Amino acid sequence: MTRLFNDPDDFAEEAAAGLALASARWVRPVSGGVVRSTRGPEPTVAVVIGGGSGHYPTFAGLVGPGLAHGAAMGNLFASPSAHQVHSVATAANEGRGVLLSYGNYAGDVLHFTQAQERMRAAGIDCRTVTVTDDISSAPRSEIEKRRGIAGDLVVFKIAGAASEAGADLDEVERLARRANDRTRSLGVAFSGCTLPGADEPLFTVPEGRMAVGLGIHGEPGIDEVDVPSAEGLADLLVSSLLDEIPDGASLDGARVVPILNGLGGVKYEELYVVYASVHRLLEQAGVTIVSPEVGEFCTSFDMAGASLTLLWLDDELERLWLAPSDTPAFRRGSIEGRVEVGVTESAEEQRVVGEATAPSREAAATVTRSFRAIAEMLDAEADELGRIDRIAGDGDHGIGMHRGSRAAADAAQRAADRGAGARTVLQWAADAWSDAGGGTSGAIWGEMLVALGDSLGDDRAVDAGTVADGVLRMKDAVMSFGKAQRGDKTMVDAIVPFADRLAQRVQAGDRLLDAWTDAAEEATRAAEATASMTARLGRARSHGDRSLGTPDPGAVSFALVTRTVLDILKGDH
Amino acid sequence: MTRLFNDPDDFAEEAAAGLALASARWVRPVSGGVVRSTRGPEPTVAVVIGGGSGHYPTFAGLVGPGLAHGAAMGNLFASPSAHQVHSVATAANEGRGVLLSYGNYAGDVLHFTQAQERMRAAGIDCRTVTVTDDISSAPRSEIEKRRGIAGDLVVFKIAGAASEAGADLDEVERLARRANDRTRSLGVAFSGCTLPGADEPLFTVPEGRMAVGLGIHGEPGIDEVDVPSAEGLADLLVSSLLDEIPDGASLDGARVVPILNGLGGVKYEELYVVYASVHRLLEQAGVTIVSPEVGEFCTSFDMAGASLTLLWLDDELERLWLAPSDTPAFRRGSIEGRVEVGVTESAEEQRVVGEATAPSREAAATVTRSFRAIAEMLDAEADELGRIDRIAGDGDHGIGMHRGSRAAADAAQRAADRGAGARTVLQWAADAWSDAGGGTSGAIWGEMLVALGDSLGDDRAVDAGTVADGVLRMKDAVMSFGKAQRGDKTMVDAIVPFADRLAQRVQAGDRLLDAWTDAAEEATRAAEATASMTARLGRARSHGDRSLGTPDPGAVSFALVTRTVLDILKGDH
Repeated sequence: MTRLFNDPDDFAEEAAAGLALASARWVRPVSGGVVRSTRGPEPTVAVVIGGGSGHYPTFAGLVGPGLAHGAAMGNLFASPSAHQVHSVATAANEGRGVLLSYGNYAGDVLHFTQAQERMRAAGIDCRTVTVTDDISSAPRSEIEKRRGIAGDLVVFKIAGAASEAGADLDEVERLARRANDRTRSLGVAFSGCTLPGADEPLFTVPEGRMAVGLGIHGEPGIDEVDVPSAEGLADLLVSSLLDEIPDGASLDGARVVPILNGLGGVKYEELYVVYASVHRLLEQAGVTIVSPEVGEFCTSFDMAGASLTLLWLDDELERLWLAPSDTPAFRRGSIEGRVEVGVTESAEEQRVVGEATAPSREAAATVTRSFRAIAEMLDAEADELGRIDRIAGDGDHGIGMHRGSRAAADAAQRAADRGAGARTVLQWAADAWSDAGGGTSGAIWGEMLVALGDSLGDDRAVDAGTVADGVLRMKDAVMSFGKAQRGDKTMVDAIVPFADRLAQRVQAGDRLLDAWTDAAEEATRAAEATASMTARLGRARSHGDRSLGTPDPGAVSFALVTRTVLDILKGDH
Repeated sequence: MTRLFNDPDDFAEEAAAGLALASARWVRPVSGGVVRSTRGPEPTVAVVIGGGSGHYPTFAGLVGPGLAHGAAMGNLFASPSAHQVHSVATAANEGRGVLLSYGNYAGDVLHFTQAQERMRAAGIDCRTVTVTDDISSAPRSEIEKRRGIAGDLVVFKIAGAASEAGADLDEVERLARRANDRTRSLGVAFSGCTLPGADEPLFTVPEGRMAVGLGIHGEPGIDEVDVPSAEGLADLLVSSLLDEIPDGASLDGARVVPILNGLGGVKYEELYVVYASVHRLLEQAGVTIVSPEVGEFCTSFDMAGASLTLLWLDDELERLWLAPSDTPAFRRGSIEGRVEVGVTESAEEQRVVGEATAPSREAAATVTRSFRAIAEMLDAEADELGRIDRIAGDGDHGIGMHRGSRAAADAAQRAADRGAGARTVLQWAADAWSDAGGGTSGAIWGEMLVALGDSLGDDRAVDAGTVADGVLRMKDAVMSFGKAQRGDKTMVDAIVPFADRLAQRVQAGDRLLDAWTDAAEEATRAAEATASMTARLGRARSHGDRSLGTPDPGAVSFALVTRTVLDILKGDH
């Protein structure tokens, strides 16, 4: 919803004022909108765009060298008036004629057409190219009735680049029309925006459902389906757009610009997840992808939705699409003289697995099985660990341990498959756990596993003594890494009694299995006892005593790991 | 909430893959993150940034010439591992040393410091500048404990620009530190984001409340207040930041870069409304504003919130801040050779008010009073008109009529104050109504008022005949503009019987007051009768028969206007 406004009636006007103040490098305010604040060496055909407010960066964010000359800015989702369009077009005119371009909506057509008549009556050559990229808004047989959505950017950019290159009005109009003819979009929405001061959203989509083809002002869609996976959405968008290749284009040898546009509430990371599938699907279809764009280009406030636009290039359009532009929200080509750098193989591919003795490879197999069991256990326990962590921390401990252990198990397997010994398997697992687990717990587990590996080596059999020594090293790694002491309510409270008890029992001559059994029980008791401690250190400032009565998730997960390893040791026995 | 993902566990990795595919012009993927895909003519100091995912364009969106050389990308809101940072730094290194820079969070400090040690152990000169701009996260006396938020952009940009200019590692480090020392931020939040696959938001803020100083991962704020107006928020942010001017800077002669940052769910138009007040408040404080930025620079998925950053420039920092850069999300300086264009006075200021006779000025006074009364009436009726319009249309009729009539009343008053006759007053009112009302109804009312003015003129007394003639012209204007016919359920269904009845009664010799009384009753009956019609034309496709039983809002508002004018005529009588 829209939260920040003064008088809702003044919203669009105040937003326009703020935009002009913030963007004075590119635009200056005139009655009815904005025009460029700078002029190039030669006069050019003026490209004047516009429409309702609420779609930033469309329209005013696209005014500047290489793109539009002016934008008429209407009220929220309302066309600018003919008077406003006329005012902006007059201010933008450099004496070489005016091209009006805007999305094809009834109100906009009325007002821009009136403005065009007034310009012509004053002897100024004025033309119009409306944008009609939304394939859901009318069938192909009534293509001229379609509305304009994110394809606006394409048509404006091509027209602006043609103008910048010095083309006359005939040529700018021809190229803008060609760009529109070769541009197709389809959008989806999950929820509508609420306008400033309004009580209700402009429209709603049932929870868990997705409207297909819904317009940027909430105009009805053509279908409603369950919210798909990111890949499912990419498939829907790509297949629908490939079903309608524009006249004059073909899949054979096609060069296409994909524009994945967020409507406001779907954020960049989500768009990139979807884009990964879009890219793959387009390549699978045989298309060559040129200079893709992923971001917010035509929004509807904070409406949750996304659209995909495909521009089917030809040589002219490609040159114009890639030409420099400099506007508040769309800039290209600022630093020249760069050369591309080649791709290197991944760090793991470059990694050499050292020699290992047969006994060490045997130990490595036990380690690998242990990681698999730990990953399965943590998959099951992730939610509960997250719940405990949310009480005093940020709630990501469960998911971090799950991710880390899963990656560690996979990496251990890959190392073991390449004949690695115990130390190497633990090193690969350590890096993978640290990478995938992230955060402090990922780093600490990475350090612990490296320390254990240093004790186990690649060249010898593993016995109770080396294991107990390795666990003591793990303890030292934790304590030096995190600087925590016993009683701070951290993993230290579980690993210290575990390591000490294990070393003590092994030194006393016990078998590894018996010593581990005893030590794991000790770790479990110690982890439970953290429930009676109050978190100190970093967390204390923010969370006070909220954690009292809840055990520390790091201590709990450590104890769980010791018990899982115990099951493996029992099985081996 | 986050809706688009495949397996939530793979989200960050898939987003990184999509980003690399979409941004190949700037970045290429390496183990642990991305590095630049191009190289300049001379080797430079590598600026390596990084942190958890979920803050796009921070971090990977800021990699490219003139900015960072590489970004280590952790999991969602989790630090990259030391291994990842090390991998990215190694790939980014061009042989002139590495500067690590990142927001000051415990996990990041752990991992980046470990990576720095590994780099140094390999003989590579490696330094660190952490970003600590968030004034809410620790008192000034513990400034080194503060966390980094949108100030990241400032420190990275300054370091990257210094590197691009050929500075050595000492110099890049010094300038990055200076940038951090001179940067201060404060943020607010209205609601938290929900991570992919999570059931609950990361945090919540009670409805109608705003958390002050809340961190970008939901770290606790320092205060909670009612959601203020846009101006109130600007005041809070600016006054808090002006309370803590950095050492070495002062208000006297200050040159400051404001960065108004949206966290994800607060959109561009809202940010611009807030920015208008930020700009004014900073200027009032005596600050010279340089190259402001308004947009999304450091997000937290779709968290609804905003932050203001102030960079207190000196000559060095200003040059570096304005230097070109070319990254997926932050580009500067693409087109050279532009000259600034001066500001022209507004269209209305340029407008000349023609001569008018005393009788026409008298009629203009009646017209002006009528507009004031119409604006008051529509203020009262706006909600009800909106309600009717929402049944079959987009619900903006009430607000559009209210805005339009209010602006028309103000413009009519300004014209009348300058001695204008009836026609000129109506022309000014027409343009104002059309501008402010927007949409189709704004345009139609604009045309109607112009048509009426043409009949009334600036040079004669107004009598029943000229009024009736003017109203017939209004009817013609409506019908030729909208192409609607009677029975289409539009304003035409009210204006046709009104205009015809008025002309008929006036022709029959009735006084204007009597004729208008009869015609207004006819218009009211006709407007009510539209309730039994089904909307046809453009609206039919989308809304079917939903409008049956509800009168047309355009017809209703027209009838209401005729009744309001009747009250004025009665008063004059």
